[in-house]
Amino acid sequence: MSQKGDLMTVRPDVRVVDATIRDGGLVNNFMFTDDFISALYRTNVKAGVDYMEFGYKASKEMFDTSKFGKWKFCDEDSIRAIVGDNPSDMKLAVMADVGRCDYKKDIIDKKDSVIDLIRVATYVHQMPAALDIIEDAKAKGYEVTCNIMAVSNAKEADIDQALDMVGQSSADGIYIVDSYGALYPEQIRRIADKYMEVGEKYDKFIGIHAHNNQQLAFANTIESVARGVSYLDATMMSMGRGAGNCAMELLISFLKNPKYNIYPILKFLEQYMLPLKESGALWGYDIPYLLTGRLNQHPSAAIDYTHAGRSDYADFYTDLLDK
Amino acid sequence: MSQKGDLMTVRPDVRVVDATIRDGGLVNNFMFTDDFISALYRTNVKAGVDYMEFGYKASKEMFDTSKFGKWKFCDEDSIRAIVGDNPSDMKLAVMADVGRCDYKKDIIDKKDSVIDLIRVATYVHQMPAALDIIEDAKAKGYEVTCNIMAVSNAKEADIDQALDMVGQSSADGIYIVDSYGALYPEQIRRIADKYMEVGEKYDKFIGIHAHNNQQLAFANTIESVARGVSYLDATMMSMGRGAGNCAMELLISFLKNPKYNIYPILKFLEQYMLPLKESGALWGYDIPYLLTGRLNQHPSAAIDYTHAGRSDYADFYTDLLDK
Repeated sequence: MSQKGDLMTVRPDVRVVDATIRDGGLVNNFMFTDDFISALYRTNVKAGVDYMEFGYKASKEMFDTSKFGKWKFCDEDSIRAIVGDNPSDMKLAVMADVGRCDYKKDIIDKKDSVIDLIRVATYVHQMPAALDIIEDAKAKGYEVTCNIMAVSNAKEADIDQALDMVGQSSADGIYIVDSYGALYPEQIRRIADKYMEVGEKYDKFIGIHAHNNQQLAFANTIESVARGVSYLDATMMSMGRGAGNCAMELLISFLKNPKYNIYPILKFLEQYMLPLKESGALWGYDIPYLLTGRLNQHPSAAIDYTHAGRSDYADFYTDLLDK
Repeated sequence: MSQKGDLMTVRPDVRVVDATIRDGGLVNNFMFTDDFISALYRTNVKAGVDYMEFGYKASKEMFDTSKFGKWKFCDEDSIRAIVGDNPSDMKLAVMADVGRCDYKKDIIDKKDSVIDLIRVATYVHQMPAALDIIEDAKAKGYEVTCNIMAVSNAKEADIDQALDMVGQSSADGIYIVDSYGALYPEQIRRIADKYMEVGEKYDKFIGIHAHNNQQLAFANTIESVARGVSYLDATMMSMGRGAGNCAMELLISFLKNPKYNIYPILKFLEQYMLPLKESGALWGYDIPYLLTGRLNQHPSAAIDYTHAGRSDYADFYTDLLDK
């Protein structure tokens, strides 16, 4: 694959996807105020963000609605209470997690929904179940992506086969997801080339969702863009599980398309994200996340450690080596 | 230039340079305790770090010794009080800043000094003065590097000429210095290729000193390594002016040479760097530094803003646009 675009011109195929509520909701159990969500919506519209992900379509059979904020479930009414009929140019997304979503019931026909895009999150070994959701959502009239998680932990032969399966599906796009924040730019370029090859063969766009365990979420995102990846996930002030994601403010300041505007984002950061951080919501690069990322492990041990207020990094490291 | 090395093997030409005292000293006016410096020295030796920079050789005519810690001046006796005759394999460095250093007097003959490497910091328009220091230090018996600062702000023709001048000098190495944290990996690769070409022509190694304004210090460092850059600056927990530098813990966890050991570094971070942060020393990625980096400006406005405890990011941004 050759370089796509450069640092001076616009790549018209690029789409910015705000995942603040969905990945950030993993930090605070989706307990955002309506004021926060409304302001985020208005901010994204003003900033030229292309898609805003509202949260998960999680099964109410499996998850207690009293223990999570409403954005874990994303009822049609909850979203409409914020956006009305969404008179903006920005599209709305939700995530359907394989094995945790009653998609047949909870994802209604597109003609009755203000949602535009269903993002199907799957591990590589769950592909048949993911394909069922993809085909169901497509038949109902949505745009659909397949987000293959934890790519750093999957065998290349399995990734190849999964890509071929989703290539032959009705999905519109395929996401590279570095769930563990384990990958270096050199690896991301190789993976992007592989995904782009499948995308060109089957006419699907490629997206990226990066984590910041090694302070590489932004770098990996922009390096993948240069290989042709076009759907770019970011979150306000990096908010997301553990070390968080690619920061929206970094991504918007990088992109050259004049439709993007950093000013409303800076306003939102000072008015909403700083108070959220100060209220105790805990995310962002820290040594424990570096260590799980480096060891290609799920961040859960680092999250527990950070919440326990521990700072004995060296002991934590030797503990991890035993896992 | 082709890729040098890969993610699995050892690049024996790589050298890790700890710049914690020198760049970190810009945060706290070099007011480190002797205990901190001794522990840092022992940590670097145990971790396999190749060079440790102690600070500046600043002119005592120009700077009031009562207003700065001793590492702004790096008297021979100060260093020997920490390292004795430096019985380790690790080499010691100091920085001589063009126009701020009485090098003829303050840099003594190598045979009388425990210092191994003189790093000459210069802007591109100061090259003749830099060359005087380089030749003086080389004649006295030291290893010497030329660290051309603020490369993002210099014209390419001027950089080309400066590289040719230092190429013909006695310097052993040339540093890429992204003082403003303004450069993306794509730009760093191009710059690294240019410097490497000069390095191969004149038999000089190339180094990199990155800043973290856009969370790219580590990414830019490892991307430059893949183009052949071999002297890599890093600081403990990124400590350095403004947004700080490439984090030592990230760099050591990346490098594959078994001589490097992250464990003593993690111990040092928990025992010394966390308390230093908690005592109020202020550095690291933050929105104001992103904005000066993006606008290719010196971080001084962001440093002032951060020290004033302000968080009106949007107003700060509009202020910067007027500068």
